[in-house]
Amino acid sequence: MFRSHTNGELSSKQIGQKVTLSGWVQTIRDKGFVLWIDLRDRYGITQLVFDAERTSSELLDEARKLGREFVIQIEGNVIERTSKNPNIATGEIEILVEKLTVLNESLVPPFTIEDQTDGGEELRMKYRYLDIRRNTVREKLIFRHKMAQKVRNYLSDQNFIEVETPVLIKSTPEGARDFVVPSRMNPGQFYALPQSPQTFKQLLMIGGMDRYFQIVKCFRDEDLRADRQPEFTQIDCEMAFVEQEDVLEIFEGMTQTLLKDITGKDFGKFPRMTFEDAMKTYGNDKPDIRFDMKFVEVNDLVKGKDFKIFDDAELVVGINVENCADYTRKQIDALADWVKRPQIGASGLIWIKFQNDGVITSSVNKFFNEEDLKKIVEKFGAKQGDLILLMSGETLKVRTQLSALRMELGNQLNLRNPKEFAPLWVVDFPLLEWDEETERFHAMHHPFTAPKPEDEHLLETDPGKARANAYDLVLNGNEIGGGSVRIFDKEMQSRMFDLLGFTKEDAEAQFGFLMNAFKYGAPPHAGLAFGFDRLVAILDGNEVIRDYIAFPKNNSGRDVMIDAPSKIADLQLDELELKLNLK
Amino acid sequence: MFRSHTNGELSSKQIGQKVTLSGWVQTIRDKGFVLWIDLRDRYGITQLVFDAERTSSELLDEARKLGREFVIQIEGNVIERTSKNPNIATGEIEILVEKLTVLNESLVPPFTIEDQTDGGEELRMKYRYLDIRRNTVREKLIFRHKMAQKVRNYLSDQNFIEVETPVLIKSTPEGARDFVVPSRMNPGQFYALPQSPQTFKQLLMIGGMDRYFQIVKCFRDEDLRADRQPEFTQIDCEMAFVEQEDVLEIFEGMTQTLLKDITGKDFGKFPRMTFEDAMKTYGNDKPDIRFDMKFVEVNDLVKGKDFKIFDDAELVVGINVENCADYTRKQIDALADWVKRPQIGASGLIWIKFQNDGVITSSVNKFFNEEDLKKIVEKFGAKQGDLILLMSGETLKVRTQLSALRMELGNQLNLRNPKEFAPLWVVDFPLLEWDEETERFHAMHHPFTAPKPEDEHLLETDPGKARANAYDLVLNGNEIGGGSVRIFDKEMQSRMFDLLGFTKEDAEAQFGFLMNAFKYGAPPHAGLAFGFDRLVAILDGNEVIRDYIAFPKNNSGRDVMIDAPSKIADLQLDELELKLNLK
Repeated sequence: MFRSHTNGELSSKQIGQKVTLSGWVQTIRDKGFVLWIDLRDRYGITQLVFDAERTSSELLDEARKLGREFVIQIEGNVIERTSKNPNIATGEIEILVEKLTVLNESLVPPFTIEDQTDGGEELRMKYRYLDIRRNTVREKLIFRHKMAQKVRNYLSDQNFIEVETPVLIKSTPEGARDFVVPSRMNPGQFYALPQSPQTFKQLLMIGGMDRYFQIVKCFRDEDLRADRQPEFTQIDCEMAFVEQEDVLEIFEGMTQTLLKDITGKDFGKFPRMTFEDAMKTYGNDKPDIRFDMKFVEVNDLVKGKDFKIFDDAELVVGINVENCADYTRKQIDALADWVKRPQIGASGLIWIKFQNDGVITSSVNKFFNEEDLKKIVEKFGAKQGDLILLMSGETLKVRTQLSALRMELGNQLNLRNPKEFAPLWVVDFPLLEWDEETERFHAMHHPFTAPKPEDEHLLETDPGKARANAYDLVLNGNEIGGGSVRIFDKEMQSRMFDLLGFTKEDAEAQFGFLMNAFKYGAPPHAGLAFGFDRLVAILDGNEVIRDYIAFPKNNSGRDVMIDAPSKIADLQLDELELKLNLK
Repeated sequence: MFRSHTNGELSSKQIGQKVTLSGWVQTIRDKGFVLWIDLRDRYGITQLVFDAERTSSELLDEARKLGREFVIQIEGNVIERTSKNPNIATGEIEILVEKLTVLNESLVPPFTIEDQTDGGEELRMKYRYLDIRRNTVREKLIFRHKMAQKVRNYLSDQNFIEVETPVLIKSTPEGARDFVVPSRMNPGQFYALPQSPQTFKQLLMIGGMDRYFQIVKCFRDEDLRADRQPEFTQIDCEMAFVEQEDVLEIFEGMTQTLLKDITGKDFGKFPRMTFEDAMKTYGNDKPDIRFDMKFVEVNDLVKGKDFKIFDDAELVVGINVENCADYTRKQIDALADWVKRPQIGASGLIWIKFQNDGVITSSVNKFFNEEDLKKIVEKFGAKQGDLILLMSGETLKVRTQLSALRMELGNQLNLRNPKEFAPLWVVDFPLLEWDEETERFHAMHHPFTAPKPEDEHLLETDPGKARANAYDLVLNGNEIGGGSVRIFDKEMQSRMFDLLGFTKEDAEAQFGFLMNAFKYGAPPHAGLAFGFDRLVAILDGNEVIRDYIAFPKNNSGRDVMIDAPSKIADLQLDELELKLNLK
C-alpha cells in the first residue's frame, strides 16, 4: 500500500494516528536541527517534519538528501502543528516522520512547479507533464472534466443519447481543409477526419434517434492562428420534430445549469437579439453585453454641416463612454492612434465632451455649434462627465471598427470582468454571405441550414437578403455555440447546393448519401454545436483555450513534447502506395 | 410545435385530451370504412384511427394516400381502444384523428423496418439510417449510451478525471500498424492516430493527475478479421500510487455496478485465476467459466499401456462431458471430425463412456482394461452417464485444441447462456512471449509492463519465465479488459526495450519523451483498458460488436453508406506534397 491517505485529507481529527503518505517533494526547509518537507499530490499538501530529537538523526540525514520533485513515501504520526496555516486544508497538522522511502528520484525540473512558474510557454509545452503538476494547470483540466460530466448528465436527463460517429469518414470540402488518412487496404483512396459530425447527426435524425449528442473531437487543417488547434472538441447536438424555440430552450437550460454550478446564481431567461440588431447596436454578431456603450447612429444630426468627412460617409455612428469627459488630449490621441492601426484601419476619431461643468466641446467645434452638439449629446443620452466618440465611413467597415474600439475601451475601463457572465442569443442570421473573392454565395452557417419559411421566396429574387433559422449562443463577446434548423426536404437541399455553386455531379459525389437519405422520410430537425474548449475556458473566466487542453499543439500544429508530426518509415509509405513529392 | 406527446407516452390517463403527434407510418390497415395507422417514433407506437363516420371522408382519403415511412403530424383526440393491446405501453388508447399533415414522403424502404427485417447485412449497412430506425438496432445504441454514462459516473465518483488525449500523435510501431495523417504544414511529416493513449496516460500519471480515465476512440490499421473495426472505443484508465490490488478493486467495482444495473443481481467478489492455471485448467487465458468441463491431465494413468499415440504425447488431457454417455457413435464421430478440421488441427479424439448401467467402455478398450479405465473415470470425478473425451499431443497445442472443443460443446449443450454472466480475473501473465518467426521476445501486454519484483532476476537468466503484474478481466470467455502495473524506473524501461530488441536509437526516437519524463519523479502507477464495443455487446447478451456501433465499417474497412475511403482531389495531394505510387 502506497498511502493510507492523500495529502489533502488529514486534519486535527486524525491527530495521534499513524499514516502512510506518498507524493512529490514540493519544498524542503532545513533549519539544521529540524527539517520540514511539503509533500504534494493532486489533492493537496501535507507538511512533514523530521528532527533528530523526536525521530532519528539517520532519518534527518536521509531527508537532507532529497530534492525537489523526488517521489517519496513516508510513515509517521499525525501531530498538531505549532504554527498553523489556515490557508490550506491540512494546515492544522503535520506528520512526524518515522520511515522514509524514496520511490523515484528527480532531476531538477526545468521550471518551478508553482502556480507562478518561471518557465516560459515553450519550455512548459516541451515538459507538459511537469506543467500539469502545477495546481493551476491541473485545476483547469479538472474543471473541464466537471463541465463535461455536467453536460452529459443534463443532456442524458433530457433523453439525449450520446452516439459515437465515425472518425474515419469521407473528404468533403465544406469550409476548411480536411485532414486525410491514406487507406492501405484501398490504395489510392483516403479517409478524412471530420470537421464536425454534421451529416452523421442528420442521418441519426433520419434514423429516428430523436435526440442525439456527442462530446467529440473534430479536425481542421487550417493555417493556425493564435489559440486555434488542429483538433478541438465540440458538444454536438441534434433534435428531431423541433422548431428553433425547442432547441434554444434545451440549450439555454444546459447553459443555465453550468452557470448556476459555477456562480451559484440563477440566470433567468437569456436575452435575444437579431443578427441585424446586433450589427447595428454593437457592430458585431457576438456582442459582449456585460457593458453598455451601444452604438448610436447620428447621420440625421451631422450631415450638411460642411464637415466633409461626415458628409461623404455612408454612416456616422458613435458610442458614449461614461464618465470619461476628463480624458486628456493625450489619452484621446492614443485611442485615435489605436483605431488607425492597420488591423483596425479607421481614418480617425471625433470626440465630444459633455464636461462636468455642463459645457459641451468637441474636436469638430469648427463645424458644429453648441446647439448642434447638444442635439447629438441628447441623442446619446449622455450625462455631464461623459465622452462621446464618433466614427464614420462605409457601414459595415465603420461598425466593425467601432466595435473594436468599444471592446478595447471595455478592457481599458475594466468593464469585462471574466467572472461575470452575460449570455445572449443572436438569431435570424442571413442564410448566405457573398464572397467578393470567389464571386459566389457561401453558406453563412453551413449548406444544410434552412431559410426562414417567410424568406423562401427571396431565394429566387434576392438570395442575399434571405434569413435563416440560425442562431448563436454568445457569452461575454464569444460565440460559444451555434446551430440552425436544417433543410429536410430533398428539393430544397438541391436548390441550396445550386445556389452555393455546386454542380449536380459535385453535390451527388459529396452528399449523395444524405440526399438519398432525404428520400426515405426525413423528419424536421434542428441542432447546435458548442465549441467545448472555448466554452470551458470562458466559464472558468479565461479566454486562452490552450490552457484547457491537456496536450495542445503549437501554432505550427506541432506537439513539441512528443515531437509530432514526424517522418515515417519508407516501408510505411510503400505499404500505403504513396511517395513524397516535396517541393 | 410538432408534437404535444411522443408516441410512447399516452395511456388511458389522457383519454379525452386533444394531442398532437408526429412520427413515421409503421403500418396501415385499411378496412374500407375505417383505417388504422401505427405511428412510430423512438419512444413507441401509437395507434391512429380514421373513419368516415366519426371524422370526415376527406381525411380518410388523405390517410389512404400515405405509405410506409411517411413522416406525418396529426391532431386528434385520445379515445379508449375497443381491442386493447397489453403488449405495448399505449395499448389501451388510440387517437381519433382530426387533422393530418404530411411532413415528408418516403420511397418504399429497401427493407422492412421491423425487428425481424427482410434486409441482408450489406443492404442494411448501405441504408444504415433506415436500419437504425429498427427498434432492435436503436435499443443497442441506447444501451451503449447508458453503459457509457454509468461508467463515467462511477469513475467520476471515484475521483477519476476524464482527460482528452490527442488524436494526432506520433507514429510508434508498437503492436499493430498505425494509420497516418500527412501534415500539410510540415511537408514530408506525418501524424499517427493512436492505437491507445498508453504513453499519454502514463505522462498524466507523471503529471500528478493521480486517477485518469477516458472513453476514447483508438485506431488500428490491421487486416480486418470478422467483427474487427479499424476504429474502436476503449475505456482507458490509469492510477498512480497503486498496486495491482487497488486497480482490480476499482474496476471490479465498476463491472459489478454495470452487472447489477443489467441483472438486478449482486455479483460478489470476482474469482481469480493465474494465467498458468487458466491454461492448465481451460487451455485458454480467457476461460468461459459459466460451465465446468475443467481439464484433467492423465499422463500418470495412460502412459505405458502400449497405446502409441498416448505414449508419444507430451500431454494427455481430457474433459468430462456430463450426462452425455448416451452419445451415439455418429455424434462422437462428428465431434472428432470437428476437432480434426484444419482450424483446430487435432489428430483425433478418444472417448470413455461411464454408462448409465455402470459399465465403462471406450474407444481404446484394446489398450486399457476395466481397471485402467476406472482409474481414469475416478480422476475425472465422472458419474454414471458421463462421457470423457481425451486428446493428446504437444502441451500448448493440445490445450488449445481441447479448449476449442470445450467451447463447442458448451455451445452445443446450451451451457453458454448469454444472459448469465461469469466474470473472472486472470492474473500473473508472462511478461514476454517468444516469437518463433522473428526469433525475439515480444511484450505479452506491452513494453511498459513491469515484471513482478520477485521475478526481476529472471530477466538476466530466463526472461521467458518472468511473470508480470498484468491482469485481464474475462467475461463469458471474452477478454473485456486488460492492464498491468507499469515500469516507472528509467533503468528498467531501458532494459525492457533492450530485451525487446530495440536499439538505443530506436527506443530514443520513439519513446524518448517518455524515458525523459521518467527522469523527473515518475510515481508508481498501473492501469487498465476495456474494449468498450465488446464490453457493451457482451453485457447486452450479444457477441457481435458491429451491432453496437452506429456506423460500422465492413471487412475491407469501408463505410458503404458514405462510400469512404474515396479518391481525393489532385489539389489536396499537391498541398500535402504527396504522390500516389500505385502498384
